[in-house]
Amino acid sequence: MKFGIFGYGNLGRALDLAVSESREDEVRAVFTRRDPQEVKSAGGAPVCPAELVEEYAGEIDVMLLATGSASDAPRDAPRLAGSFHLVDSYDCHAKTGEHLRTVGDEAKRTGHVAILSAGWDPGLFSVFRTLFHAVAPRGCHNTFWGRGVSQGHSEAVRRIPGVRYAKAYTLPDPVAKLSAYRGAATLSDTERHTRECYIVADEEDYARIGEEVRAMPHYFAGYRTSVHFISEEEFLREHGKNPHAGSLISVFRTGKYRENREEMTFSLTLDSNPEFTAAVMLAYARAVWRMARDGAVGAYSPLDIPPRLLLSAGEADTYL
Amino acid sequence: MKFGIFGYGNLGRALDLAVSESREDEVRAVFTRRDPQEVKSAGGAPVCPAELVEEYAGEIDVMLLATGSASDAPRDAPRLAGSFHLVDSYDCHAKTGEHLRTVGDEAKRTGHVAILSAGWDPGLFSVFRTLFHAVAPRGCHNTFWGRGVSQGHSEAVRRIPGVRYAKAYTLPDPVAKLSAYRGAATLSDTERHTRECYIVADEEDYARIGEEVRAMPHYFAGYRTSVHFISEEEFLREHGKNPHAGSLISVFRTGKYRENREEMTFSLTLDSNPEFTAAVMLAYARAVWRMARDGAVGAYSPLDIPPRLLLSAGEADTYL
Repeated sequence: MKFGIFGYGNLGRALDLAVSESREDEVRAVFTRRDPQEVKSAGGAPVCPAELVEEYAGEIDVMLLATGSASDAPRDAPRLAGSFHLVDSYDCHAKTGEHLRTVGDEAKRTGHVAILSAGWDPGLFSVFRTLFHAVAPRGCHNTFWGRGVSQGHSEAVRRIPGVRYAKAYTLPDPVAKLSAYRGAATLSDTERHTRECYIVADEEDYARIGEEVRAMPHYFAGYRTSVHFISEEEFLREHGKNPHAGSLISVFRTGKYRENREEMTFSLTLDSNPEFTAAVMLAYARAVWRMARDGAVGAYSPLDIPPRLLLSAGEADTYL
Repeated sequence: MKFGIFGYGNLGRALDLAVSESREDEVRAVFTRRDPQEVKSAGGAPVCPAELVEEYAGEIDVMLLATGSASDAPRDAPRLAGSFHLVDSYDCHAKTGEHLRTVGDEAKRTGHVAILSAGWDPGLFSVFRTLFHAVAPRGCHNTFWGRGVSQGHSEAVRRIPGVRYAKAYTLPDPVAKLSAYRGAATLSDTERHTRECYIVADEEDYARIGEEVRAMPHYFAGYRTSVHFISEEEFLREHGKNPHAGSLISVFRTGKYRENREEMTFSLTLDSNPEFTAAVMLAYARAVWRMARDGAVGAYSPLDIPPRLLLSAGEADTYL
């Protein structure tokens, strides 16, 4: 398969590396808004200016969108769906419906297929949450993230004027996790997690930036959030990696007297969040390609995709 | 929804209890090959002779098949698919393809929908194995079962002439499990597990039964299997419960120098295997009903089902 990669930050680079691991696949081109001379593809693909992307229609089987969810992806995804089959890992939970509609309209109009929010959460976790809720409609279900770097939240902080570097960490609350294993209650997102931000900025901007972070709807508002301003040196030394972790814990009771406890858990432990996200996006990119060949159009989420479509027909059967 | 339950052993009873937990659903009738006078529905449903099941066509939305996989289900499922929409948890991995084809032919001929092998493995585990393999095509993937009672294997032993009671346990090999977390190798089923059978029979049959168990293809042949003949008293005292457990462990490497380790795990810890299986079957029964209303026909496995179909449209979106 021939892929395009639109955006070349951590995720774009991870996609590039993941595609170059496969002998049958190639990255036809990387697209960037920066000066293409200053961007080097890790897999050796040509680097082209983002504004010329439409010229590559017909040369790329599936476009992989790797720009940030906070403001770039809502603009880039509909544009790209006008010329390409598309996968993204759009991660703003509260706006996934709107994103699917906007991209879906354009994809249908131009005869393309897109799978959106195909990362780990939303993405794999969405699939597992749906299955766990279906199996245990009266169960106690809790998703925990962290400790790890949230790319979406870090990127959201970096969009604030005056922020030079930023990393946002999500941490599970240990008491909330025990409560989940006991099946005691389904807790709210803000009860389950705390957030930590490490930011490099000019000192006169600290107060304003701190306020803007804590007030950011969907990302930080309502969470116990601590904001730490640190030096560039400390930032580069201590916050260069992108590990993450997450778990989904579902507990329910069965039996005539509800005497039996049934537990389902799904968990991830990731050394590199962007490299894992890239692996999930490539899995769904193969589904996009199969759906396109079968004549499908429009935008879908991982919830719409039969697991079988992620693999070749014969391979899936061996996992039944 | 109105359900029928065909077969009334551990699984049939668990389905009956699970349906009766819901206010909107009911068990229209339970069907048994035993004397209906001797079978009492845990949820208070009418108990009818199995040979009259076709008379209930039109009164039952989805039939839940709860007879054993070793020999009953391959005969019962195609028959029932001729008159009903159907869900089963057929668990003989090596024969799922054949089962899908046989039931599918009859379901297509008569305009019904069936979802087959919708238990925990095959079933939920099949879905997760497919997702994990798609995300990590070069990863190291291992499924472990146990320690717990395998219903399919127990039932297979009970079909051997002379066996009065039987429970078959599956145990994960602890060294193999460590190897899975290290991402060292994808091990074969027989390397990952051992099996233990506890059987009540007449002493003169011990040798023959032991041989028949160990030689049974797909179930015991090739496994390290221990067979223990015990008294009826010990059996009833020690082997009355049906706990089970299982985990799917996938590890893969990412990064330019394969320097990053990514781990996905899914695990179940079940006090009651049949009650959990019943919960999975009911989840897929709702999908069957939605598919039937949308005009689908034929037999499907959980790999063919978009997760969204397990829930009402609005509910699924909240888990994205």
